[in-house]
Amino acid sequence: MNKLGIAEMIRKLAALKADKLYLNDFLLTWDKSDDEINATYLVADILRGLRVNNISSKIFESGLGISIFRDNSTRTRFSFASACNLLGLEMQDLDEGKSQIAHGETVRETANMISFMAEIIGIRDDMFIGKGHTYMLEVSEAVKQGHLAGVLEQRPTLVNLQCDIDHPTQTMADSLHLINEFGGIDKLRGKKIAMTWAYSPSYGKPLSVPQGVVGLMTRFGMDVVLAHPKGYEIMPEVEEVALKNVAHTGGSFTKTNNMAEAFKEADIVYPKSWASFAAMEKRTKLYEQNDRDGIAALEKELLQQNAEHKDWECTEQLMASTKEGKALYLHCLPADITGVSCKQGEVAASVFDRYRDPLYKEASYKPYIIAAMMFLSRIKHPADTLMELLEKRTKRVIE
Amino acid sequence: MNKLGIAEMIRKLAALKADKLYLNDFLLTWDKSDDEINATYLVADILRGLRVNNISSKIFESGLGISIFRDNSTRTRFSFASACNLLGLEMQDLDEGKSQIAHGETVRETANMISFMAEIIGIRDDMFIGKGHTYMLEVSEAVKQGHLAGVLEQRPTLVNLQCDIDHPTQTMADSLHLINEFGGIDKLRGKKIAMTWAYSPSYGKPLSVPQGVVGLMTRFGMDVVLAHPKGYEIMPEVEEVALKNVAHTGGSFTKTNNMAEAFKEADIVYPKSWASFAAMEKRTKLYEQNDRDGIAALEKELLQQNAEHKDWECTEQLMASTKEGKALYLHCLPADITGVSCKQGEVAASVFDRYRDPLYKEASYKPYIIAAMMFLSRIKHPADTLMELLEKRTKRVIE
Amino acid sequence: MNKLGIAEMIRKLAALKADKLYLNDFLLTWDKSDDEINATYLVADILRGLRVNNISSKIFESGLGISIFRDNSTRTRFSFASACNLLGLEMQDLDEGKSQIAHGETVRETANMISFMAEIIGIRDDMFIGKGHTYMLEVSEAVKQGHLAGVLEQRPTLVNLQCDIDHPTQTMADSLHLINEFGGIDKLRGKKIAMTWAYSPSYGKPLSVPQGVVGLMTRFGMDVVLAHPKGYEIMPEVEEVALKNVAHTGGSFTKTNNMAEAFKEADIVYPKSWASFAAMEKRTKLYEQNDRDGIAALEKELLQQNAEHKDWECTEQLMASTKEGKALYLHCLPADITGVSCKQGEVAASVFDRYRDPLYKEASYKPYIIAAMMFLSRIKHPADTLMELLEKRTKRVIE
Repeated sequence: MNKLGIAEMIRKLAALKADKLYLNDFLLTWDKSDDEINATYLVADILRGLRVNNISSKIFESGLGISIFRDNSTRTRFSFASACNLLGLEMQDLDEGKSQIAHGETVRETANMISFMAEIIGIRDDMFIGKGHTYMLEVSEAVKQGHLAGVLEQRPTLVNLQCDIDHPTQTMADSLHLINEFGGIDKLRGKKIAMTWAYSPSYGKPLSVPQGVVGLMTRFGMDVVLAHPKGYEIMPEVEEVALKNVAHTGGSFTKTNNMAEAFKEADIVYPKSWASFAAMEKRTKLYEQNDRDGIAALEKELLQQNAEHKDWECTEQLMASTKEGKALYLHCLPADITGVSCKQGEVAASVFDRYRDPLYKEASYKPYIIAAMMFLSRIKHPADTLMELLEKRTKRVIE
Repeated sequence: MNKLGIAEMIRKLAALKADKLYLNDFLLTWDKSDDEINATYLVADILRGLRVNNISSKIFESGLGISIFRDNSTRTRFSFASACNLLGLEMQDLDEGKSQIAHGETVRETANMISFMAEIIGIRDDMFIGKGHTYMLEVSEAVKQGHLAGVLEQRPTLVNLQCDIDHPTQTMADSLHLINEFGGIDKLRGKKIAMTWAYSPSYGKPLSVPQGVVGLMTRFGMDVVLAHPKGYEIMPEVEEVALKNVAHTGGSFTKTNNMAEAFKEADIVYPKSWASFAAMEKRTKLYEQNDRDGIAALEKELLQQNAEHKDWECTEQLMASTKEGKALYLHCLPADITGVSCKQGEVAASVFDRYRDPLYKEASYKPYIIAAMMFLSRIKHPADTLMELLEKRTKRVIE
Repeated sequence: MNKLGIAEMIRKLAALKADKLYLNDFLLTWDKSDDEINATYLVADILRGLRVNNISSKIFESGLGISIFRDNSTRTRFSFASACNLLGLEMQDLDEGKSQIAHGETVRETANMISFMAEIIGIRDDMFIGKGHTYMLEVSEAVKQGHLAGVLEQRPTLVNLQCDIDHPTQTMADSLHLINEFGGIDKLRGKKIAMTWAYSPSYGKPLSVPQGVVGLMTRFGMDVVLAHPKGYEIMPEVEEVALKNVAHTGGSFTKTNNMAEAFKEADIVYPKSWASFAAMEKRTKLYEQNDRDGIAALEKELLQQNAEHKDWECTEQLMASTKEGKALYLHCLPADITGVSCKQGEVAASVFDRYRDPLYKEASYKPYIIAAMMFLSRIKHPADTLMELLEKRTKRVIE
């Protein structure tokens, strides 16, 4: 991408109505308008374009990006750190300890105490159904009030780095990958994408990816098929989002309990394990009651339940049934690869291996998507500022 | 605060004699002259003013701020990191492990090995009476010698982030809050402040806050009352500092074992738990002897001793007895709030809740106070440099 | 060093042929030409010179320096962080957990996932013979392929922060110290350096220092003597490197099992404990088999073997036998000092104490050496860029 191409994208951005992103959180993709989603893709591509052309996109001389991870997370941490760094923020990690989930007053106080110089707070809290999104709302409210009360000079905005409901930075990266692979957002219209469950020998994987995919990809006029064994249903609220989307955009959203049916003639496949919503709700309650025996029993039960569906694997045979046998394979990584990372898993080794480079490319959009979300929430006139950066041409690396 | 207001403060700063702060540590407030203390307040307010006006106060293109915390500390860590970031330093944390306290040669060597590019070393070491301040002196001496020997290109200066004797970043933030609430440092003259012990179900809280408050607030012509049950005396050396201060400035320093007496007609109250000095000395010795049984026995004894004073709580009734029933309530946070964070604690929930915003505001001064201490210890002509920053108007965030 | 001196060094740099360092890893000193080694020394001294003259050497507006440490490492971590910071990179630490050593696909994937905005990857992996260097090659290959596949916009380059074979950042810092102490690299010709084993009550110290010293110091026409008890042989491959070096440069490389012989008339002594290569190979296999009993047995055996050589200590008597009794004493620190850090160790307390300042000075070169390696691997025309920095004179600290 050259500088003319970047300028062209900035002009496209200027034509979109995305000013509500400014000083707002990015928690769920379906809270955002089409223009706002498109603006985020554009800014991500523009920031990448600037970087490729060795043009600095540092917009902060100082300021912190706070990360709060309820779970270990090397990859998300590095994506968030990269995005912060690209824009000039320094990442500071709040390590609250994994076991305790802070509530009420503690959240309110801590959120303010760490935010005196925070521009952005990135939170990953995906473990417990009914908790993650709620926690983010609590933090957001706390810093909003702190700003109104004159405690915080600025109101930090939140980026959802994965919650119990949605995983916007992942699915936006996934879809930006699709946009660039297929040659434009309009080229996605009429394409079939199979978001399917796949077997994994592990337990309790979050639902935020399938839910996020179904809630986002139904915007683009695609035929979105959600496939899973019985018992692995996703949240009904998200299915409603999907149905509302297709009513508006003209694609389709269908469900099946048959993996082969989902793969048939698909342009894109996204086979990935997740826990059932009902099981995750049960687990959350057991954790609340600190019922260790109950948790162990549930884990055993769920692993057995998983094991009944070992045939849900993305095999070469299934791949051959996709459009011209060449569907684009997606995964949020890391995948459970049969014979590589586990005895039997989500995907055959030969399939995974063939798609390694596109998979890594898919992942590479994430820091830019996060940076775009940050940019649009902190900069009032994003097109003007990006044009300024482009024209100023401050070198990212002195040559 | 607008730019004219900032310029006015810079002119006030220029009139103060504070050059001894340059290339010196900030360990105890009573080691500093009135002009030096006032310069620190001014620079803190100026830095905040620059930030509010979106003017960068980055004075370092590179350099490290080293943090050494002997204790877990989310809030202090974030304040220190924020201060470093505001001036352009990157925080690097030295994690020595909490159990081992390095001595002698090890301190000398480690201090040098981590300081090759360090401008500032921030230390929090408040757990053991007779240790924290001594450790800071050791580190300071080590890097001073390292600089003289040509090992370190620069001599890093220390900021005391809490020791066994004083807690200057806390009490300076507390008092800057007072200055801004009451409309000027001269407005503090004649005000009554009650620094009082309060009941907490926890054990071994450091004395640095009450000592720091008594050692600092007696400078301003205030009537400082120290209240605590018998057995919770603070260090006699600090009481001497307080007496010397009032002899000089004309306020008063009195002691009482009656909480109600302290609160009566007070303009400001600071009810907070601490351990007795004698008990802390005993504990330090037990830790040195690694006497686990002795430590457990002492803990039990001290909790029982605390429990005899559950009536030392900042209640609505006590608050009503203060000046017009509206004394400003201070706390270093987090507080033990009755019925919220514990069954019975330092303060009634309704009192705490009414003062939440001012309490958070009080805390918000800390990063700026730390940054001011750093600024004054690294910049030779602080008024000139600040005026330069103000006139240059480099944007902190590109708009 | 003044600005004229820096310009002179930059001119020397321009005359060297060191362009192969650009976009290449720094893993083993003997993979590098004499010009490349000399260029690294020059850039280290130039960067130090710029810093002493308060001139910024920030060449990155954004970008990450990734650190991967398989072992705890305060000092190396701070050196790496300092070097990153000096050039404008932000350090991000990949904490994989010490127990698990990632292999194959996992390395490939993780290396790419953390490198989207990485300029430099610094790795310390010295614990297991046959592993560390191999792991670095794996990571290097992974990011090279990631860059070719369009996943990474840039190919991050590696700096070996210590492996099982070599310790280039240490030995280059050691030798730059020698160069500056003796007044030039040519002044090292004919000097005798004793790299000798010394007794330590600990077990399993890596061989990378003696191997690195022998593999590097034989370049300068020095008489390099390697002394150790029987059974503490280093890798034969490195001895071959040393022999090839002296054949080329005219110094000598000899071995002895007599510490006194090595010290006799030496200009420089480097007494330091290490494990035997054979024992380390054995240990690696036991760890692979997770043979805890075997590891415990081996440890006991090796400590006993060490204890047979308690007389291998750098005493005052031995020091008196060196050239004019004034050989320069080197150590990579921390040292096992008799009566200070252990009952009996590598060096007498009085010897260590006399050399404390030069030892700290020796260590102070490491951040600059690391920064020089980074600089030369990321900047295409290093002399031009350095001259630009010198002429631009951006202040590192605003005065």
